Amino acid sequence: MGAGYTDAAIEARLSSIAIDLNSDLGEGFGAWSMGDDESLLSVVTSANVACGYHAGDATIMRRTCENAVKNGVRIGAHVSYRDLAGFGRRTIDVAAGELISDIIYQIGALAACAQVAGGTVSYVKPHGALYNRIVWDQDQAAAVVQAVRLYDPGLAVLGLPGSQFLGLAQQAGLQAVPEGFVDRAYDDEGRLVSRRQPGSVIHDAARVTAQAVRLATDGSVISVTGSTVRPAPRSLCLHGDTPGAAELARQVRASLRQAGVRLRAFV
Amino acid sequence: MGAGYTDAAIEARLSSIAIDLNSDLGEGFGAWSMGDDESLLSVVTSANVACGYHAGDATIMRRTCENAVKNGVRIGAHVSYRDLAGFGRRTIDVAAGELISDIIYQIGALAACAQVAGGTVSYVKPHGALYNRIVWDQDQAAAVVQAVRLYDPGLAVLGLPGSQFLGLAQQAGLQAVPEGFVDRAYDDEGRLVSRRQPGSVIHDAARVTAQAVRLATDGSVISVTGSTVRPAPRSLCLHGDTPGAAELARQVRASLRQAGVRLRAFV
Amino acid sequence: MGAGYTDAAIEARLSSIAIDLNSDLGEGFGAWSMGDDESLLSVVTSANVACGYHAGDATIMRRTCENAVKNGVRIGAHVSYRDLAGFGRRTIDVAAGELISDIIYQIGALAACAQVAGGTVSYVKPHGALYNRIVWDQDQAAAVVQAVRLYDPGLAVLGLPGSQFLGLAQQAGLQAVPEGFVDRAYDDEGRLVSRRQPGSVIHDAARVTAQAVRLATDGSVISVTGSTVRPAPRSLCLHGDTPGAAELARQVRASLRQAGVRLRAFV
Amino acid sequence: MGAGYTDAAIEARLSSIAIDLNSDLGEGFGAWSMGDDESLLSVVTSANVACGYHAGDATIMRRTCENAVKNGVRIGAHVSYRDLAGFGRRTIDVAAGELISDIIYQIGALAACAQVAGGTVSYVKPHGALYNRIVWDQDQAAAVVQAVRLYDPGLAVLGLPGSQFLGLAQQAGLQAVPEGFVDRAYDDEGRLVSRRQPGSVIHDAARVTAQAVRLATDGSVISVTGSTVRPAPRSLCLHGDTPGAAELARQVRASLRQAGVRLRAFV
Repeated sequence: MGAGYTDAAIEARLSSIAIDLNSDLGEGFGAWSMGDDESLLSVVTSANVACGYHAGDATIMRRTCENAVKNGVRIGAHVSYRDLAGFGRRTIDVAAGELISDIIYQIGALAACAQVAGGTVSYVKPHGALYNRIVWDQDQAAAVVQAVRLYDPGLAVLGLPGSQFLGLAQQAGLQAVPEGFVDRAYDDEGRLVSRRQPGSVIHDAARVTAQAVRLATDGSVISVTGSTVRPAPRSLCLHGDTPGAAELARQVRASLRQAGVRLRAFV
Repeated sequence: MGAGYTDAAIEARLSSIAIDLNSDLGEGFGAWSMGDDESLLSVVTSANVACGYHAGDATIMRRTCENAVKNGVRIGAHVSYRDLAGFGRRTIDVAAGELISDIIYQIGALAACAQVAGGTVSYVKPHGALYNRIVWDQDQAAAVVQAVRLYDPGLAVLGLPGSQFLGLAQQAGLQAVPEGFVDRAYDDEGRLVSRRQPGSVIHDAARVTAQAVRLATDGSVISVTGSTVRPAPRSLCLHGDTPGAAELARQVRASLRQAGVRLRAFV
Repeated sequence: MGAGYTDAAIEARLSSIAIDLNSDLGEGFGAWSMGDDESLLSVVTSANVACGYHAGDATIMRRTCENAVKNGVRIGAHVSYRDLAGFGRRTIDVAAGELISDIIYQIGALAACAQVAGGTVSYVKPHGALYNRIVWDQDQAAAVVQAVRLYDPGLAVLGLPGSQFLGLAQQAGLQAVPEGFVDRAYDDEGRLVSRRQPGSVIHDAARVTAQAVRLATDGSVISVTGSTVRPAPRSLCLHGDTPGAAELARQVRASLRQAGVRLRAFV
Repeated sequence: MGAGYTDAAIEARLSSIAIDLNSDLGEGFGAWSMGDDESLLSVVTSANVACGYHAGDATIMRRTCENAVKNGVRIGAHVSYRDLAGFGRRTIDVAAGELISDIIYQIGALAACAQVAGGTVSYVKPHGALYNRIVWDQDQAAAVVQAVRLYDPGLAVLGLPGSQFLGLAQQAGLQAVPEGFVDRAYDDEGRLVSRRQPGSVIHDAARVTAQAVRLATDGSVISVTGSTVRPAPRSLCLHGDTPGAAELARQVRASLRQAGVRLRAFV
């Protein structure tokens, strides 16, 4: 590789032989269902399983773990603020000490479900408003990191490249895994364009699969202004809760394999 | 020992050198508190810790586990129907499969809190309406037993002597521990007199401590008609949620020690 | 009419010029949706709106009331046990006094949503496990009746013909409206065949519409053994939460109108 | 009155003949209790009744309304974010449209309980984190105002003097009632000193009663730097959830009457 490559680019390229695909699963609750879990489990390598705080109940968690194990898919704890009515999408100013406890509780509940299903929890991914908050909020980011460390420092964490969360996780000795988004527009700093902006979500299948392949093979993405930025993700996040999402996820998977990318869980 | 002793009496007497004292702890929720946990933790040898379904939240569960560990008190999962509004005191016709999942979820959540506090969950005790239901309901009793077996067959279970629950637990190879009540009247079959009957709860301290000593040393209790019945408990349940309860618990402990009974967790 | 007609049959026939169609609506919660409310609102004359205890949140309740008002559909409070996790489908042994309060709370919450939408709550229909329980349980049936009377004795109640609930409601001076089921099999006593029995739910569209027309025009239904029984319903319940349900509801409506039945709310 | 008096001072003095005393009531939940409602109901003229979002369940709400009616105390809806686990003390970034619905739901549920108890809801007071948030957050403040207007523009609202909430309420034509705090330190702008600052809460009974009398008779308070500021409250907030709080409330009431202040609800 030439002199023009940054370390991050080289690292991304070297790891480009393989990438993880993750998706949110088990997001029903009681009589309500959401998403097409069955289809997604045949596509992804890592399942972010809701733990009962934003979605998921004990029965759904067990079933999701069983299906993940059957499909050889890694199980991650998709931890959230305690907010079923808001699906974890509303920021809550929870005190750090309570957040630590809430995260530990959720991981433990899922760990029991995973264990009974013959699996294990391999990583932790914050959900929704918590995910977004700990991009910049040091207190809450540190609380999530501390919860994982206290419970099991062998767990990986999945989050946004450049976030406070991943930074603190790395400092704490956790395996901190940055993820990329195949259907979201990036700005020139490598941040996601806010969903409130037009064009923030990419619906065109060809553009989505192209972005997936570029992120996986080169670690880079073309920003909304046309620049090349390098989030260097080790996992790509696929959504499953909109019509056609599962089909698009399949296309992403197919495109990646066609480009010679191996699909492999990061843990 | 003379010919007049039944096997149960002999067994009770042999084990009378030691008995466990258990109490419900961690039954606050959010801003609400209940009971005098601090006092009880200096009295009992086993703590039935609420797991968030009838009481307890993640922060209270962690704190209760920390205090149990500090006091050398065993931690048990006080599992319940999902009913915060009813404090787990209302029977719910939950399907067996869902009940299994609910129990696994609760044990796992508490196990994480216990682990982080340097402890471990040693046993499972059903709470409130669930406790009473599985005295006779085979389906729900079998569901709780199955949940414990699936999660960890090394866990003990604590319940009512003669209940379907303890019977099925024993058949399943679990350590099934019968408990006695120091302040409840018993009928001639060794069952508790319903709380709706007058005289079902004993308030007189002298009678309570006498019943505690007899249950611990002889395995027996004098029924409401004056007969001697033998529940042969290996643990005595102390309540802490009424005024004066903690003081009464202390008196029970003192009376037991004075009678030469060692206080020792059953696991 | 000839001498062979019972009073009930005559009453049913006289009222057969018009019938009400009711359906469960607003049964989403937060991010979760259920059923095809939009389609059903163009079919039914009465909307049983979930009040937050088994489904429905404040935002969904307001929107459902707004849509009911737009469509000229009556609003009923679909009251339930407090059990979001179980969708109100699990019997709960709630004390009568608490049940009274729970019902009042739900009606009031919906009344506010209806009022803001320019409508009003016209009736109360118990949901799920509560509906089934008060077919025979006098205490809980009396509690629901008492709640309605205390809140507003001008409200009608909708329930199963022959149930304790409708009997007690009538005695209490409430307008007690019996409903029929277009897609459920009846036994010779005019009771619904349990869902656990094969054939309890009728899937064939022709049989469903035929049963609807007979119930509406003659008050009668052919039982599983071929007998004619007369539930004499003043409202027919249509389901909307299964695939094809909204289409079937439309066919029922069309068949009724073709048979000369006017569709009219009972209040 | 001399030339040195500002309009606000004169207005405060003229209205000083009477003041309202309000307190948070009905803040238990299920098996949990909080505060000394019975004592406070003999002290205050207005009861802020929890509506089930931060505390209170249907049974507690009915009982609290019954006791308020018996004591001739006005009933206000103490509306909150939906957060039982956090007792409504954590800010939630709920969307304005959802907040409007949530407020309407709560007022309606309480209105039903009040009506059945022979009373009526007279005013709305936001609770906890919502109260603090709408001091400055225009969107959420406007949402609460809009909810009250939609439900009943005849309802008064109770809040912090100078808050966005009271300002918008007044603009919307609602009766906007400013309240004062007898046991909280004020800064020179007439704002409350943050609870995180030492000395923010006044515990000395003599200072509390003196501040109560000054607020009631002169509309003013001595700030932490010794300046005189004029919140000109029409209601004084008394707390009841700490030990000795009910006794202190009684002393405040006695001191006010001794100073010739009549206690009278603002609506």
